[in-house]
Amino acid sequence: MARIIAVQTNDVRFPTSRTLDGSDAMNPDPDYSVAYLRIRTDAADGHEGHGFVFTIGRGNDVQVAAVRALGDHLIGRDVAGTLADLGGVWRELVHDSQLRWLGPEKGIMHMAIGAVVNALWDLRAKREGKPLWQLLASLPPGELVDLVDFRYLTDALTRDEALGILRAAEPGREEREARLLAEGYPAYTTTPGWLGYDDAKLARLCREAVADGFTQIKIKIGDDLGDDIRRLGIAREVCGPDIRIAVDANQRWDVGDAITWLDALRPFEPAWIEEPTSPDDVLGHAAIAKAVAPLPVATGEHIANRVVFKQFLQAGALSVLQLDATRVAGVNENVAILLLAAKFGVRVCPHAGGAGLCEAVQHLSMFDYIAVSGSVENRVIEFIDHLHQHFVTPVDVRGGRYYPPKAPGAGTEMRQESIVEYSHGYRSVRK
Amino acid sequence: MARIIAVQTNDVRFPTSRTLDGSDAMNPDPDYSVAYLRIRTDAADGHEGHGFVFTIGRGNDVQVAAVRALGDHLIGRDVAGTLADLGGVWRELVHDSQLRWLGPEKGIMHMAIGAVVNALWDLRAKREGKPLWQLLASLPPGELVDLVDFRYLTDALTRDEALGILRAAEPGREEREARLLAEGYPAYTTTPGWLGYDDAKLARLCREAVADGFTQIKIKIGDDLGDDIRRLGIAREVCGPDIRIAVDANQRWDVGDAITWLDALRPFEPAWIEEPTSPDDVLGHAAIAKAVAPLPVATGEHIANRVVFKQFLQAGALSVLQLDATRVAGVNENVAILLLAAKFGVRVCPHAGGAGLCEAVQHLSMFDYIAVSGSVENRVIEFIDHLHQHFVTPVDVRGGRYYPPKAPGAGTEMRQESIVEYSHGYRSVRK
Repeated sequence: MARIIAVQTNDVRFPTSRTLDGSDAMNPDPDYSVAYLRIRTDAADGHEGHGFVFTIGRGNDVQVAAVRALGDHLIGRDVAGTLADLGGVWRELVHDSQLRWLGPEKGIMHMAIGAVVNALWDLRAKREGKPLWQLLASLPPGELVDLVDFRYLTDALTRDEALGILRAAEPGREEREARLLAEGYPAYTTTPGWLGYDDAKLARLCREAVADGFTQIKIKIGDDLGDDIRRLGIAREVCGPDIRIAVDANQRWDVGDAITWLDALRPFEPAWIEEPTSPDDVLGHAAIAKAVAPLPVATGEHIANRVVFKQFLQAGALSVLQLDATRVAGVNENVAILLLAAKFGVRVCPHAGGAGLCEAVQHLSMFDYIAVSGSVENRVIEFIDHLHQHFVTPVDVRGGRYYPPKAPGAGTEMRQESIVEYSHGYRSVRK
Repeated sequence: MARIIAVQTNDVRFPTSRTLDGSDAMNPDPDYSVAYLRIRTDAADGHEGHGFVFTIGRGNDVQVAAVRALGDHLIGRDVAGTLADLGGVWRELVHDSQLRWLGPEKGIMHMAIGAVVNALWDLRAKREGKPLWQLLASLPPGELVDLVDFRYLTDALTRDEALGILRAAEPGREEREARLLAEGYPAYTTTPGWLGYDDAKLARLCREAVADGFTQIKIKIGDDLGDDIRRLGIAREVCGPDIRIAVDANQRWDVGDAITWLDALRPFEPAWIEEPTSPDDVLGHAAIAKAVAPLPVATGEHIANRVVFKQFLQAGALSVLQLDATRVAGVNENVAILLLAAKFGVRVCPHAGGAGLCEAVQHLSMFDYIAVSGSVENRVIEFIDHLHQHFVTPVDVRGGRYYPPKAPGAGTEMRQESIVEYSHGYRSVRK
């Protein structure tokens, strides 16, 4: 019987602050980083499970320590039994009462659990010889709901309702998979819009985005209203009237400020306003959504867990749900979030970019299309053209669309050379 | 000019799971622990600042790593300048954009900031020769509001409103301080009610609590309804009709379950229901509060930050606010929470127990009485008779009341012998 024999971690940091890639109103100088995890087994197949938490620099060592602390839950486990019950593993990790105290279900420890869960899914997908999206989309509804912990969700979504959603989407799975393979999944690009870029670079990158086939871009705003108006004007002029332009304030405002600021941007007809205020503020977002309607409110990349997502949906506080592959506790919690979104009829447009987030999150949207919502209407996965070269199976984005990965796994494996080259420990030693 | 020259941390764990002290429906076997911090300066006075995060065991090493990671923000700082602007220090730590990504404002990194902020307050109080409660209660309203970050709060509480609350409480500060010193602050005890205790121990501890002068006790519930009914019956019989009995479910239920379960406990007229469901579920608590009225809903020990507290108050989702000394980012954030509670007219009954939480949190309630709410009506600080002997200035609870500490500091300093005796690293070595 094969067992898990080792859990290795790495503190990997890319010096992205040097070029202001990723700069926005709240994050002026991120160093895109990953707290990386590799699970090894003694199975003859040699497969490993890889996962990570994306961070933006300082504190990545603490995130790594949290991932490492979960090793005790893994070492010595029967591989096949573990992978056959990932719902059970999720509950065991999230409800470990001592670790739970450190959240509960939020922040560093919850994200660490996400890395472990995603690494186990990577291992399972490799062992089954399928990309994660295809593996998930091949599971029967009963097995999918077993992945989900309905604790704290039942006032909004019961197990039976979730089963009903999945069963309703069973007809047409094959047809949608074929269409996905042929046509890809729509993307939008944030590459042009970083706050640290000057006007010329903004205009050039907008032009390139349109030429590359994107039909939506995103601009960072929220630092200075005059700058925002000027930059939105440039983007609109370069892109023309048919390209959707979303705006992203990265949590910069209080509720009242958001409403005033967005009123001034109304002439530009943004595709959505993203993260207008604190990601914990369900009631604040609901107030903003009501005041700025019909402008859609988007958020999710910093929403801590499914319980907070539930409330955003109950309160009508978002109409574009931006789940993230490494903020919540991995694939299982994102399956719960996709089911909640389907129940409330809200479109999911995942957060990506960072390092490896595009590679990871595309699997969730593709699974959603085939087996949950059954729709790509008005749905787009974020794309940012950064750091893909460091992953073993970089995304395939062409003509403004993500083409489904075919390699087995969850897309979360980094190239060994990149891990060594950007490992924080190694770099310190070499200086 | 004196500077901060060292930041030392310790991983301290007490083996409380052996006796089931602290056992409840969600936490069957806690090992009460602290991620401990000591700030040293090169000032001639030799004063140190001590602070900690309370945890319940596993993961305390990760919490220590997070506290240690904040050392870079402290080493080399001018002591006097730092302590004169603790509002500025709070903002610097909480809004460090790279560290903020790890929450934001929640979980391990936010609690680590709390330990640092509390240690700085401990240092300041020692240098000024006052206990923290008296130091805070001596500050003018303008200086108190400067401690508070109003970001994300202004739709519920503005700086001017906070100033107004503090100015309205200025008359009578001296009289209330004198009364506090003479009469103490009301307490209630959770010592009898742990879920792991048998009926005989429950009855004996109830009897002792009443004999000791407590007018309120608390019983842990939520594991089995039959057990809860039997145990509440025992407690009521032993305590008699005049003692208030609060009940605490420690987040065990979904919204619907909570409402059904509490209906069955109605005949016992609980003083409040504590933590009926997830501490992130503002809307869930609001639904429960509405359904079980007039039974008061209490929560707060696991509420991540002031933004979530704001919403609980806006939604009428709690009527007893249970702030905790080490869950949020320290004294400054708790001052914000006390001001929010005062604005909404909600009573504050802090969470305590654990290790050192009674010693720390009493300062906040006493400050609140003198300078914020001006009231002790219906307010009680939790008391649990555990582990006080490990602190340099253990609480003085007599006749069911906390008597104000007179030693300079924030109450957060542990005895050096206890740190060594229970240090996790030392223990591992000795095994």
